[in-house]
Amino acid sequence: MVKYPNLKKPNTGHKSSNGKHFTAYRGMNLEEDLNRSNRYYLETDRAVIYKKPTPIQIVKVDYPRRAAAKIVEAYFQKPSTTDYNGIYRGCYVDFEAKETRVDHFPFQNISDHQVLHLERILRHGGIAFLIIAFTSIEEVYLLDASYFCERYHHSEKKSLSYDAIAKHGHLIPQGYAPRLNYLDILDTYYFKDQTS
Amino acid sequence: MVKYPNLKKPNTGHKSSNGKHFTAYRGMNLEEDLNRSNRYYLETDRAVIYKKPTPIQIVKVDYPRRAAAKIVEAYFQKPSTTDYNGIYRGCYVDFEAKETRVDHFPFQNISDHQVLHLERILRHGGIAFLIIAFTSIEEVYLLDASYFCERYHHSEKKSLSYDAIAKHGHLIPQGYAPRLNYLDILDTYYFKDQTS
Repeated sequence: MVKYPNLKKPNTGHKSSNGKHFTAYRGMNLEEDLNRSNRYYLETDRAVIYKKPTPIQIVKVDYPRRAAAKIVEAYFQKPSTTDYNGIYRGCYVDFEAKETRVDHFPFQNISDHQVLHLERILRHGGIAFLIIAFTSIEEVYLLDASYFCERYHHSEKKSLSYDAIAKHGHLIPQGYAPRLNYLDILDTYYFKDQTS
Repeated sequence: MVKYPNLKKPNTGHKSSNGKHFTAYRGMNLEEDLNRSNRYYLETDRAVIYKKPTPIQIVKVDYPRRAAAKIVEAYFQKPSTTDYNGIYRGCYVDFEAKETRVDHFPFQNISDHQVLHLERILRHGGIAFLIIAFTSIEEVYLLDASYFCERYHHSEKKSLSYDAIAKHGHLIPQGYAPRLNYLDILDTYYFKDQTS
């Protein structure tokens, strides 16, 4: 599950008409932004990429008369794979999306299982990456899984710095539709030798 | 959700030592059989294919002290995509698995959304198919989505007969590991021009 704190940006100092401070923060929710982007890609027939449902362990279900089955006891499960996958330009695409409030990405934000999964996808010829959002500055990066997994296993630190992500990743253009145009990054860096 | 009735095969007439009739039925559960097969493919590093979690709409969650969050009201949602996807031999693979007790496959067993999804996958260059289990005779077929979708839209009947599925589909070999060896079908019919 993507946790996405409703961080406020530093106050810009503008004042609204009633004299109160006006906060420029327009809100950002990585999961919702990606879902909107994927819906846009689907509607324009550019790619077929979905977020997988959250895995839930169901313990007890009630079956009321004339009504839908009601789950009355269930628990969240830890996902063993990533949150998103699909197909783009004939290729299998797989990624995990995470946000961080701080100026680095702590490795504890991702599970060993998910790293193992990304490595499997790379080995089988898929495109695998992370999408990392720095919520306090509203920058979102696409970071290839091969770089990330290497650092995850061999870095002495337990995190990746903002600088490393900005250097080795690609800043995702933000707009209205699609909200996060991460497929343009794939076009530029993963399909650069192919004609569109 | 795959419904899989615990059908018993016709009694074979054998008697066990206590004189009672012995039923040869060894049990079959399509979802469990596919999950076992996919686990085997994963462990042998042949493919990375998972069943997506069942989509669930969560209405109410309790957060007891010192215990995991407990979902106390939730409902099953209709999936808009298929149940299974992943990567095999560098290709995006996507399929829906269904069983039927009768000698045909009723189109009402699949949703418009799922057919639309399979068509999208085909258009984007993925491998898309159905796995259909005839539980009463314990035969399981792989049926390409292009044939299925064409029939779904243009057949005058509201179902596909066993004969049509046996003719246009491919019988999946059953064994111990993998339980349902559907990737061998892909090797033979989808990758036949490629060297392994």
